[in-house]
Amino acid sequence: MRSIDWVDGAIEIIDQRRLPGEVVRRRLATVAELVDAVRSLAVRGAPALGVAGALGVVLAAREHPDDPVARDAAVRRIATARPTAVNLATGVARAASRLADGPEAVLAAALAVRDEEIAASAAMAASGADLVAELCGASARILTHCNTGGLAAVTGGTALAVVTELHRRGVLREVIASETRPLLQGARLTAWELAQAGVPYRVATDGAGPYLMARGDVDAVLVGADRICANLDVVNKIGTYAHALGAARAGIPFIVVAPESTIDESTPDGGAVPIEDRDPGEVLRFGGTAAAPAGAAAVNPAFDVTPCDLVTAIVTDRRVIRAGRLHTRAGCPHR
Amino acid sequence: MRSIDWVDGAIEIIDQRRLPGEVVRRRLATVAELVDAVRSLAVRGAPALGVAGALGVVLAAREHPDDPVARDAAVRRIATARPTAVNLATGVARAASRLADGPEAVLAAALAVRDEEIAASAAMAASGADLVAELCGASARILTHCNTGGLAAVTGGTALAVVTELHRRGVLREVIASETRPLLQGARLTAWELAQAGVPYRVATDGAGPYLMARGDVDAVLVGADRICANLDVVNKIGTYAHALGAARAGIPFIVVAPESTIDESTPDGGAVPIEDRDPGEVLRFGGTAAAPAGAAAVNPAFDVTPCDLVTAIVTDRRVIRAGRLHTRAGCPHR
Repeated sequence: MRSIDWVDGAIEIIDQRRLPGEVVRRRLATVAELVDAVRSLAVRGAPALGVAGALGVVLAAREHPDDPVARDAAVRRIATARPTAVNLATGVARAASRLADGPEAVLAAALAVRDEEIAASAAMAASGADLVAELCGASARILTHCNTGGLAAVTGGTALAVVTELHRRGVLREVIASETRPLLQGARLTAWELAQAGVPYRVATDGAGPYLMARGDVDAVLVGADRICANLDVVNKIGTYAHALGAARAGIPFIVVAPESTIDESTPDGGAVPIEDRDPGEVLRFGGTAAAPAGAAAVNPAFDVTPCDLVTAIVTDRRVIRAGRLHTRAGCPHR
Repeated sequence: MRSIDWVDGAIEIIDQRRLPGEVVRRRLATVAELVDAVRSLAVRGAPALGVAGALGVVLAAREHPDDPVARDAAVRRIATARPTAVNLATGVARAASRLADGPEAVLAAALAVRDEEIAASAAMAASGADLVAELCGASARILTHCNTGGLAAVTGGTALAVVTELHRRGVLREVIASETRPLLQGARLTAWELAQAGVPYRVATDGAGPYLMARGDVDAVLVGADRICANLDVVNKIGTYAHALGAARAGIPFIVVAPESTIDESTPDGGAVPIEDRDPGEVLRFGGTAAAPAGAAAVNPAFDVTPCDLVTAIVTDRRVIRAGRLHTRAGCPHR
């Protein structure tokens, strides 16, 4: 089951807002429908956004066959629907570079983005599992944050693809899925994917992560990324940085798994990345339940920056980059 | 309005499970009712638990006037209703030490615990505000976690009493109330108290705290404590440790505000404190809404340990203890 694909002339997604309650497939046949799906997180996750962006250009070209100005405006609306994940803009740019060659060429470029993400996921799963086995031995307990599984990509995923591969190899003891407030991608989506795959897991609140590491319940932290800067600062879902601080203090590896398409050499460091501030209502409500008094205000940054010195390694589909931090308890410079 | 008091021969509390929707006063006339209220967090917060424990001994003495064995068993049930906050057991012990002198002596001892908590709150508010003004200047932005206001004490509170005093002095710019999953004491209770007091605030998810510090939105972190060990390790609501790591990395003060009764010289360090693991259902539900797939498991430690080297200062009702960490951005050893 692919989380996003091109089916019978339209984008088809699994609507991630409805999980884990229902598995609903949804067709996106217009640019407006796609932009709404991206903004509302019906489709989300850096690799999936890259595919969504590329396929969106096919929709834009179809909607404006004789009006390049309107078409290019539609393409820009897709590319800027969310600001932080570089994959969205990159996917759009790749498909848009073929606009002069006609709709078939655009579609072929978009499908190539999709197929490359599928292949990248398989490559990351293998080399990420090799790295975790090397660092943690034959019975790893992994903490992960947000959702980085097949739902965040086309199939497989990034950090969660490594987890699933460790399980397949028989060297995974447990996953702790950090719930990922405010939208609970960890509790809703990662837990759902792990249950489907038969992987043993427990959900934890985001604030519990660093303490679970300190008391010895976690052997490594694996996360994805929405953008990796030239200096290897990692931009990812809000809450990632706190886990990185906890891993550094506990002296356990903090590993980022992301395709090469997530690395943005044109962004020097985390300070240069636009961090999306989302609707305060996401923090103040949960489902139908109010989380705070009527009239309360909230601040809701959707991403944070993990400085490169807290990162042990970055696993891409092409290489393993050993980053700034020593990873053994004995070698941890913070202890 | 007192959060806990002795009224017409019974304990009267504000039921904190019903806030912020409703302000419901509830009478606890038996040991069983008190123990249930403590376990279910209808009454919570270290200072309030001390008062609840002391007043509970009055109920135990009344229920078993002629059966010291049953009475002492009831007293033990109260003292062990929750394991982590030392105040509960201390409050019980103080009132129980007068059992041989008759019910009036027990009540007098319990009311003395109550009155001392009220006085301690006022003393901490004043000296804590002095310290924050010294460290942060005349326009402080404070991040706080969980609820440490009047609801956690009798009146005033601990860290939140300092915040309210800063507001009264006109030197508070904003409070960020960390929501405090799973039970949202920050979003529900702290936001409610700040709104009542007219203090400007915004709610944030727990995972956002360290990033808000890193991007310069916070001048100091103020929290309470459930137990302070002999070496000054601080045990407090889960999520506190992550904020302490964030504050250390950002080079901003991390200040603990707690009455002397919270300091437990008989506990050498945080590793010796029993950490309450609570019902996984607290994590898996959010109000009436499921947060995770049916059948999901969760791990739910209710507290964590902040090592003393991350603490800038501890403010009690009698003194300001300068703890292990330098507190200026320039002086931060982690940068």
